[in-house]
Amino acid sequence: MIERLCVVGVGLIGGSLARALRAAGAVREVVGCGRGRANLERAVALGVVDRFTQDVGEAVSGADLVFLALPLGAMRPALEALRDRLAPGAVVTDGGSAKASVVADARAVFGAVPPFFVPGHPIAGTEKNGVEASFATLYRSRRVILTPLHETDPGAVARVEEMWRACGAEVSYMTVGHHDEVLAATSHLPHMLAYALVDSLARLEEHDEVFRYAAGGFRDFTRIASSNPVMWRDICIANREALARMLGRFSGELAELTAAVEGGDGERLLEIFARAKRARDRYVDGGVPSPE
Amino acid sequence: MIERLCVVGVGLIGGSLARALRAAGAVREVVGCGRGRANLERAVALGVVDRFTQDVGEAVSGADLVFLALPLGAMRPALEALRDRLAPGAVVTDGGSAKASVVADARAVFGAVPPFFVPGHPIAGTEKNGVEASFATLYRSRRVILTPLHETDPGAVARVEEMWRACGAEVSYMTVGHHDEVLAATSHLPHMLAYALVDSLARLEEHDEVFRYAAGGFRDFTRIASSNPVMWRDICIANREALARMLGRFSGELAELTAAVEGGDGERLLEIFARAKRARDRYVDGGVPSPE
Repeated sequence: MIERLCVVGVGLIGGSLARALRAAGAVREVVGCGRGRANLERAVALGVVDRFTQDVGEAVSGADLVFLALPLGAMRPALEALRDRLAPGAVVTDGGSAKASVVADARAVFGAVPPFFVPGHPIAGTEKNGVEASFATLYRSRRVILTPLHETDPGAVARVEEMWRACGAEVSYMTVGHHDEVLAATSHLPHMLAYALVDSLARLEEHDEVFRYAAGGFRDFTRIASSNPVMWRDICIANREALARMLGRFSGELAELTAAVEGGDGERLLEIFARAKRARDRYVDGGVPSPE
Repeated sequence: MIERLCVVGVGLIGGSLARALRAAGAVREVVGCGRGRANLERAVALGVVDRFTQDVGEAVSGADLVFLALPLGAMRPALEALRDRLAPGAVVTDGGSAKASVVADARAVFGAVPPFFVPGHPIAGTEKNGVEASFATLYRSRRVILTPLHETDPGAVARVEEMWRACGAEVSYMTVGHHDEVLAATSHLPHMLAYALVDSLARLEEHDEVFRYAAGGFRDFTRIASSNPVMWRDICIANREALARMLGRFSGELAELTAAVEGGDGERLLEIFARAKRARDRYVDGGVPSPE
């Protein structure tokens, strides 16, 4: 049981954690904190948090669990603001989409990675923002990756794992570096492609007409280009090395495909398309066994 | 009223046209034709077609409307097979995703573009194939683009427009070249990106693990990479010039974005992401007025 949960950033991710823990009866009190007052008032009205303050230090005092659900660029100031205000025994975790940068922030703020800090990342979300978009089942059967360091207290890790399990999530573990590589491939790169595609069409002279004839496939394909630009700017900067490698890899693949299109090389195109279809059908909608 | 509709290629596109026209009471008899005997038998069992033959010439004889729902690479042989077997007054249309190549096929087979041939393209589909995937409402409120030439008989165009309207579709008109440019941007390019992304991940050594952590955004983004590889090979080759131009344009945009990631240029990234988000929110889920 969490006695007092402090959620810093009561948006889709933070709000959904609070709702899920409440629904599971796994938390007694939830304190919200954030920059947008109207959003926090809405969070109280919706019953997502019991009360709020816009002061991070005040928000975390007396909390036994603190969840930072912020754009990566806002992590360091939040850690600075909570540093001297944490209750003894409090555990801090986060939901950042890249982990090396948050660990670097923690190291910079505390001098070393503190044992009570458990870096984490729930692999869930929609392209929507704000507490209105949050819902109690967002994490059900979704994966949460925790990336504890050797400095991290195993008791703190266990509490964070228990918290996510109470939300119905499947918890797994990775090193920080491996997490950032895997996410660059499966999430950060696709977001770059969706943004670049929509932007390149928006820059066409006849873009009005082009978008008018976009059909269902385009809608699905570009949904992630409606994601929060600030959050994604921060992710790109935080995970720039792994992302740049993936972008380079993709550009190479695209150059190969473009050469096959230009040369009318049907055999090569069929090979690429068939391999991609097999992989997608097998892995994404099919049956890759879950990790323990 | 269509007395006898002949559908060559009774898959998702052809089967859905037959179902929609039947549901609307706009057709008396439907004859199916195709290469897969089991699929045609299934089409009869499902009531999508009344009867079938695997001989194109036989299938079209006596039909007043012929719909070619074939991969682009199969259009020319089909036109050759039906050339001397059409009933007087019969109208032929198609559903190919690129139009210049089908027009070139018709010109090659008939010596000139025949007045009874109305090139068309319903902007609808799913990543599924075969008559089992077809359904009567596929075209409802979807756009169908017709690209008649100056040689085309206006009476034939009117019949094809009426057929699509009976399915609930909105019909609009474009030149062949413009159609192929617009579709390269909104459909063919996104398919290339989805195929290239999935293929580049499938070629990673640790691809098992990478796909395991792919979340909902990835699933949406890559859905179109499950599309029929033969169909897409044919589209790439048929529309290679417009598609190569769009691929070049996109690669330039991606290089710009990659440079911003590598250089940690947050301002530039935010500009690209925000412009893309505005365009997507406005055009794709928002309110671009329909063309007449």
